[in-house]
Amino acid sequence: MAYQGKKLINDPNDVVTEFIEGLVETYPGMQYLDGFPQIKVVLRADVTTATYDKVAVISGGGSGHEPAHAGFVGPGMLTAAISGDVFTSPPVDSILAAIRAVTGPKGCLLIVKNYTGDRLNFGLAAEQAKSEGYKLEMVIVGDDCALPPPRGIAGRRGLAGTILVHKVAGAAADAGLSLADVAAEAKHASELVGTMGVALSVCTLPGQVTSDRLGPKLMELGLGIHGEPGAAVIDLQPVDVVVSHVLEQILSPETEYVPITRGSRVVLMINGLGATPMMELMIAARKAVRELQLSYGVAVERVYTGSFMTSLDMAGFSISILKADQAILQRLDAPTKAPYWPVGAKGDRPPAKIPVPVPPSCSARTEEILGQPQELTKQGCILEAAIEAAAKEIISLRDKLNEWDSKVGDGDCGTTMHRGAAAILEDMKICYPMNNAAETVNEIGASIRRVMGGTSGILYDIFCKAAYASLKGTSIITGKEWANALEASIAAVSKYGGASAGYRTMLDALIPASAVLKERLDAGDEPSTAFVVSSEAALSGAQSTKHMQAQAGRSSYIAADLLASVPDPGAMAAASWYRAAALAVKGKLQPSQN
Amino acid sequence: MAYQGKKLINDPNDVVTEFIEGLVETYPGMQYLDGFPQIKVVLRADVTTATYDKVAVISGGGSGHEPAHAGFVGPGMLTAAISGDVFTSPPVDSILAAIRAVTGPKGCLLIVKNYTGDRLNFGLAAEQAKSEGYKLEMVIVGDDCALPPPRGIAGRRGLAGTILVHKVAGAAADAGLSLADVAAEAKHASELVGTMGVALSVCTLPGQVTSDRLGPKLMELGLGIHGEPGAAVIDLQPVDVVVSHVLEQILSPETEYVPITRGSRVVLMINGLGATPMMELMIAARKAVRELQLSYGVAVERVYTGSFMTSLDMAGFSISILKADQAILQRLDAPTKAPYWPVGAKGDRPPAKIPVPVPPSCSARTEEILGQPQELTKQGCILEAAIEAAAKEIISLRDKLNEWDSKVGDGDCGTTMHRGAAAILEDMKICYPMNNAAETVNEIGASIRRVMGGTSGILYDIFCKAAYASLKGTSIITGKEWANALEASIAAVSKYGGASAGYRTMLDALIPASAVLKERLDAGDEPSTAFVVSSEAALSGAQSTKHMQAQAGRSSYIAADLLASVPDPGAMAAASWYRAAALAVKGKLQPSQN
Repeated sequence: MAYQGKKLINDPNDVVTEFIEGLVETYPGMQYLDGFPQIKVVLRADVTTATYDKVAVISGGGSGHEPAHAGFVGPGMLTAAISGDVFTSPPVDSILAAIRAVTGPKGCLLIVKNYTGDRLNFGLAAEQAKSEGYKLEMVIVGDDCALPPPRGIAGRRGLAGTILVHKVAGAAADAGLSLADVAAEAKHASELVGTMGVALSVCTLPGQVTSDRLGPKLMELGLGIHGEPGAAVIDLQPVDVVVSHVLEQILSPETEYVPITRGSRVVLMINGLGATPMMELMIAARKAVRELQLSYGVAVERVYTGSFMTSLDMAGFSISILKADQAILQRLDAPTKAPYWPVGAKGDRPPAKIPVPVPPSCSARTEEILGQPQELTKQGCILEAAIEAAAKEIISLRDKLNEWDSKVGDGDCGTTMHRGAAAILEDMKICYPMNNAAETVNEIGASIRRVMGGTSGILYDIFCKAAYASLKGTSIITGKEWANALEASIAAVSKYGGASAGYRTMLDALIPASAVLKERLDAGDEPSTAFVVSSEAALSGAQSTKHMQAQAGRSSYIAADLLASVPDPGAMAAASWYRAAALAVKGKLQPSQN
Repeated sequence: MAYQGKKLINDPNDVVTEFIEGLVETYPGMQYLDGFPQIKVVLRADVTTATYDKVAVISGGGSGHEPAHAGFVGPGMLTAAISGDVFTSPPVDSILAAIRAVTGPKGCLLIVKNYTGDRLNFGLAAEQAKSEGYKLEMVIVGDDCALPPPRGIAGRRGLAGTILVHKVAGAAADAGLSLADVAAEAKHASELVGTMGVALSVCTLPGQVTSDRLGPKLMELGLGIHGEPGAAVIDLQPVDVVVSHVLEQILSPETEYVPITRGSRVVLMINGLGATPMMELMIAARKAVRELQLSYGVAVERVYTGSFMTSLDMAGFSISILKADQAILQRLDAPTKAPYWPVGAKGDRPPAKIPVPVPPSCSARTEEILGQPQELTKQGCILEAAIEAAAKEIISLRDKLNEWDSKVGDGDCGTTMHRGAAAILEDMKICYPMNNAAETVNEIGASIRRVMGGTSGILYDIFCKAAYASLKGTSIITGKEWANALEASIAAVSKYGGASAGYRTMLDALIPASAVLKERLDAGDEPSTAFVVSSEAALSGAQSTKHMQAQAGRSSYIAADLLASVPDPGAMAAASWYRAAALAVKGKLQPSQN
């Protein structure tokens, strides 16, 4: 399939200069040379040739690998970075301009990825700079492990391992070492690192048509960072398998690309290629660490997981392994202000990461509270009757609630409520301390949370939790206490649920019920009577949801005439259990009158 | 088009736990609670409830937004982060476990993105924790500016602005403030930030089939971070247009979502949604800074560009704008070890970023050297004749070289070489200081660099630069000096170009020529004779490339029988100009014998 990749850019010819302008807007420690469009050089804002008393460390190459290299400019890492056009080596004059801009009397080190174009352009600039009197060394990094030797004229490609060489050289320069010593450390590091990449997709160049040769089922192993084909195309594999294969290639005793053996200490870099979510990089990191430790017997001293040397919008990653001794670790851990060098990865790691135990609740309830009591008090009897009646009412309403819900929602209101009610009926005989109303209400919440998912389950749990907090500590619970508990529950549901009256929710039944209940009790009504009267208000409130506007802010909007045809099922459910409970209480208190 | 997104994962059900395991492998400062798979909590490795003397700052939510939230765990930012499954709010018990694990006597602040599920689960956990005796506050962030008010029951969604609230709260807690003060600062920041997103693609959930509703030509404005549809779908636009539109929405005086007016100080966040290359984010940052300054008259005090709150592998970004005063800037600049808080963006920015001038070469050559001399010396005459003959020979060979090259390469060798030769003939009459051989050789390199692109152009420039360095400073140039210069040139071409004898390059002509030249001069031959004899070695060396193996390491491999049918055009070109020059020198010195 050939297509032009979608990009959030302006003119494809301006992507690199506009990138640099955005970069220096983001990082006040960076500036750039006024030589657009030919000269695209980012440099430390605090370095001037005249006063710079350290070895300058310079790198660069074609663009499209961001944050490499400009993102690594900063104290302790690169002094300057030269950007070419996308996937194009920078011209000699721009490299020379960078050398001239930051090189002081201690000289400069050029770190170059092993590509013919880079080697030639940086090489010519180096020769020219030397003829101008600059002290200069050049280290070429070729860390690719995808193909076995011999690699002929082109040699091994420079990949993400180059970033580790930048860091070692930058820290050595920052420590005040001479050019020869900085170059020697960089060269040493470059000889100890191996890299190999895998990809799920090819990258799309700005303004160009791309053909995704991989399609929906294939992946590529041993690829480059310029969209060039990899060493092999295979069927998509689980990432653990992919990681094992890549490690095997890098650490192959046949190629001997990196001198790593059992007992070695290593640094691991998992490098995203541009469009790989961090989640996937971390999953790869997890496997790589374990495999290195368990199968290869090496100590993984540092792990750098992120996107350091990308290939535009390619999905995939590379793995780099650097053999590390204490001296290299010290360079990697040295402070830097380069914005894209990973933070927080330094310092010694514990021998094995052991998850910490989950802390227990600090209010584990005492045993005696829970469990069905031997004998019920009068209040316990009434409570039991109310709960049972309410639960049974909900069970009987399942199909009706589902029917209403299927018109305005996903049609499972009845089933969900039924599940909660059934759990209550099941649990109440076993573990509800029915003589303790507060704890029983809390247990109802626990039953609901155990089986009811979704918004309604948690809202009812919040409802019970708030009632529990309100009732708790009250020894004799009268109508007044129940009314206060209802009010607290409504407030909590409204606060965390975000709804209030008129939103077509359970609150449209419960708010009028609460108001009437308070009013009747204040007027001196007998509590059970007040309950029954207020339950009529609940029902009529639930019915009135038919006349309410659309459920504003819900993910799908429902036509007004459809809404007008049904009451809100949640409101109807709340009104129904409330009414059933009220009638049961009334029946228990005045059996003869029923 | 419906498809299953390719991902580098194992079992889709394990992505979050494996992510967390990789995360703690990468960052030694983090650990996690041993409650997989239900409890997925990352916490600071250095915090224990018993000794923690600061307010704990806790956040979390569904996964798929990495690095949010676990990547922001660290001193100075989050104390713990709770992860749910992908795009699913974490369960109450896991939130409770996090609260219990890190909350000390000063209490904890929960920062929650405004989604119903998060509000309910965090709300219930908060109520439960309070009933266990924890001091606790909760701040809900809803920074979305995509739709005008009223937003009804759901309200404004929590987006990337939440990260800025994390940082403010984390720094306030780190400064030792009380829970009430930390909560107040977090709430204040949450009321000052607005966010809106744009996307080019929808995200693909692990293990699920996705339909890309946008296709190759459309983009979406005002989207959420869970793949939910945006406020509008439009044709793909240049990113500058997109940025302008988004800023207009966020800063709309009608919605008044953020209290920003002309003269305000603001902080800008450009947040990648998961698969957006850094290049594109920086291009958006550049435009946003300029537009904010020039069109809205606000001072952009900090710019954070990166991927902070993603939506799996979605391509796109969001823009957040936070109204900032000195107190907020101080919180944002405060040190943190949270690995994904951007480094290097803090500190005051210069009023306008001015690119620094390109430094001049420090060895501008003196005027008198350059330019054709009035009168040629004898050596000048010979040099002129040799250059002219060599250039004309290359010009006459154009079609032949192209023909050979078309069989084994891209067919432009003759045309490229012709371009260089023509430039030499043009420049030599104007500016070659022909009596000064070293400078003239250097100028030949400059002529070539001016017109010849590609590898051959730069290699010939390196060739000339090395000869120049070898010849420079020698007043009388004999055959011996020319032989040394040739040797130095061959060494430089081999070093930077990576080739040696037998690679089918110009070196296969020049290496035998150099060897024979030295040999004949050592044997006492007259220099012009030695040149002619060595030029025969060049020709025979070039012809012998027919018998050499395939060009190992080149991007495309060529069949052996095809290679055997033609000599290497680069080698033939080198042999030809060398021979023409040698014959011309001989002719000048011994005109009668010619």
